[in-house]
Amino acid sequence: MMIKPSIPKGTRDFGPVVVRKRQYIFQTIRETFELFGFQPLETPSMENLDTLTGKYGEEGDKLIFKILDNGDIFGRSQQAKDSRELGILLCEKALRYDLTIPFARYVVMNQNELALPFKRYQMQPVWRADKPQKGRYREFYQCDADVVGSNSLLNEIELLLIYDRVFTKLGMNGYEVRINNRKILSGLAEVIGQPSLLTDITIAIDKLDKIGIEKVKVELQERGLSDSEITTIESFLKIDGSNEEKLQQLGVLLQQSATGLKGIEEISYVLHTQPAAFKTTPILDVTLARGLNYYTGMIVEVKAPATVKMGSIGGGGRYDDLTGLFGLPGLSGVGISFGVDRIYDVLEELQLFPATAQQSTQVLFFNLDANTSATAFTMLMQLRERGIASELFHEPAKMDKQMKYANKRGIPYVIIMGESEIQEGMLSVKNMITGEQTKIKKEELTTYSF
Amino acid sequence: MMIKPSIPKGTRDFGPVVVRKRQYIFQTIRETFELFGFQPLETPSMENLDTLTGKYGEEGDKLIFKILDNGDIFGRSQQAKDSRELGILLCEKALRYDLTIPFARYVVMNQNELALPFKRYQMQPVWRADKPQKGRYREFYQCDADVVGSNSLLNEIELLLIYDRVFTKLGMNGYEVRINNRKILSGLAEVIGQPSLLTDITIAIDKLDKIGIEKVKVELQERGLSDSEITTIESFLKIDGSNEEKLQQLGVLLQQSATGLKGIEEISYVLHTQPAAFKTTPILDVTLARGLNYYTGMIVEVKAPATVKMGSIGGGGRYDDLTGLFGLPGLSGVGISFGVDRIYDVLEELQLFPATAQQSTQVLFFNLDANTSATAFTMLMQLRERGIASELFHEPAKMDKQMKYANKRGIPYVIIMGESEIQEGMLSVKNMITGEQTKIKKEELTTYSF
Repeated sequence: MMIKPSIPKGTRDFGPVVVRKRQYIFQTIRETFELFGFQPLETPSMENLDTLTGKYGEEGDKLIFKILDNGDIFGRSQQAKDSRELGILLCEKALRYDLTIPFARYVVMNQNELALPFKRYQMQPVWRADKPQKGRYREFYQCDADVVGSNSLLNEIELLLIYDRVFTKLGMNGYEVRINNRKILSGLAEVIGQPSLLTDITIAIDKLDKIGIEKVKVELQERGLSDSEITTIESFLKIDGSNEEKLQQLGVLLQQSATGLKGIEEISYVLHTQPAAFKTTPILDVTLARGLNYYTGMIVEVKAPATVKMGSIGGGGRYDDLTGLFGLPGLSGVGISFGVDRIYDVLEELQLFPATAQQSTQVLFFNLDANTSATAFTMLMQLRERGIASELFHEPAKMDKQMKYANKRGIPYVIIMGESEIQEGMLSVKNMITGEQTKIKKEELTTYSF
Repeated sequence: MMIKPSIPKGTRDFGPVVVRKRQYIFQTIRETFELFGFQPLETPSMENLDTLTGKYGEEGDKLIFKILDNGDIFGRSQQAKDSRELGILLCEKALRYDLTIPFARYVVMNQNELALPFKRYQMQPVWRADKPQKGRYREFYQCDADVVGSNSLLNEIELLLIYDRVFTKLGMNGYEVRINNRKILSGLAEVIGQPSLLTDITIAIDKLDKIGIEKVKVELQERGLSDSEITTIESFLKIDGSNEEKLQQLGVLLQQSATGLKGIEEISYVLHTQPAAFKTTPILDVTLARGLNYYTGMIVEVKAPATVKMGSIGGGGRYDDLTGLFGLPGLSGVGISFGVDRIYDVLEELQLFPATAQQSTQVLFFNLDANTSATAFTMLMQLRERGIASELFHEPAKMDKQMKYANKRGIPYVIIMGESEIQEGMLSVKNMITGEQTKIKKEELTTYSF
């Protein structure tokens, strides 16, 4: 029985070069999270199915990967009348769909031990049975930082500064952090006299980037808004200028809504409290809506540099009462997320991965025969002591075979030491990039700079 | 609908303290793999079901977690006559059961691009539907390094040196690396004239540690060996002394078996070629058998220090023709594995985790009011620039509340800066461990050593 091997649709193998580059991104984010006092959390890949169902909407439920129970499933299967029932009867567990629900579940289960506010970060894969397509996978990493149990806007500032540090460290010039506040959108719904249509308005506005203002107006009409209401929404969407100019125009437009004014106040606080701490000032974007309905305060989205065709590379916001789902009401949360796959593509396209992110073995000792390789081995161990990743070719072989291996692996230095070199107490170091070859004394190797 | 949250049996949440300690273990292993020229690989959590089935024996097949297909499973379910058939009909994919089969699958799929020998490491979770019990989980990490495409015994030496470095770095005094060679066991089967009973002999010997010599003898009898054959096996199992003494006794006992002598030669090479490179010399243990049948050369097992009650904390060996399963015959492999969960328990019991592995936020700035906290914020950012993980308490609050937070989080330093301190250009640093409080000039903070 011979199987031609393959992997499931929408999944990926990551070879050495890609893993190292991904690690560079993860490491930059992790280091920043830690510097800002966030703490790591890891939850199981599997959750109980009922922990997940009903949390991601009807569409989301369909995209949850369920895990077949072991044991007698045949008997149970007989009670099912359709595919949905069958899934529930045969599966107790499912794969994590995002990191937010497991986080909420964890907070509720550990509420007595946690020091609040609890600032946690989590970098783990999630699984979704989405139709695979370019840039959309069935297994992908999420990278989240959230603060739960604090209403302070200082958290919003800190999270924005995390974005600021990470994208600065990654050298991604030209990225933009756009912020808005759900209370501003609520205020808009209030001043046009349609507070109950907030969700409809949000959904329509959320499509502005994709479909343009004219189609948004059509959609608003279909969702039951009058021409004059739509005119007000349009003037809202056209608010423009510097952050200060926008805040001023918003103040005029929303002056009749206490909620709207609160939203403006919150945004102002976030923008004005520590402006000097930002290397890239966040941009107030009143058209930013973000789909997920549970946001209640600031919302944020990070856009890749305009030269790269790419959607959002990060996003988040403040949500109230997430843990209420699991029986612990009244805890406010605010969080951000990094889109690692997209960040990877942006760094690749702009050639921003540093050489160190691609560094593997630095030195290859050639293996010419058993005798000289024994001497080489001692030096090999010395280089490793110095923290220099090194190898000795696995067996005596012709020079060109070993040269080929070094090239294929991208090893920048090879060390050649034949019988005659050993007798002279010398060795040759060849730089594989420049082709330059130098002879040095054996003792010099311990301080040689590779 | 209120759910009392829980997690599936046999899975675990890892809170901040545990994640950091685990990261310390992973980091020590990863750094060593890299120093030795091994390259990272990551494969998907899901494999096609037929990539996995039949690879782990009949028992193993039952322990594979299958993933329910999405779509119309009800129709398909009607054709099943029992649970096993149902599983195959409803599931195309399954969760990774180990890292070796995905590695073999990857090598075959990428054989044209890989530089051979391919030295890869992989640190990822695997899933098994085992009955959960103390120390046995349904989701756990494996941590493997393998070399494929080289018969050189230099690889065996390198892998043993990886163990040597990792356990030395972890400070685990008293651990033992035990080695043997399957060819020696084959030789034994040959000299007693029962080469076809090699597997039976191996299985019986493998139980020696658990059931003792008398019961092993009974088992050998049940497996069809005669009294005189069992006497020879017993004298083999009683081989004792230094490595050199054991090698000598083996030489006498196995002198009639070419295979056995080859095994002795291989072990000798591994022990004699670079003895000075080892901080802890591997111990030849002729009773080491290791259950898995696919080993063909050296086998190795790492034992925790005798003071800790714990089985093996690592193991591996050489196997031939692993990729043959996927249509690429003739590639030899050799690999080792680290048992991270058990290593964790050993380090915990022996209190070997260094303080740095438990370090999170170093400094908490107290938040006394909006005005002083604005000043604190600037200094907070300066400390972060210096790489010191720091926080500002999220809102103005009473001193004792903030003190309590610092304590609960285990933050070693707090900085207190009231109106009067600011006017003087001073601030107070309190060491939370000693209780000592010192006043320093604001400027001194940039060089203050925490």
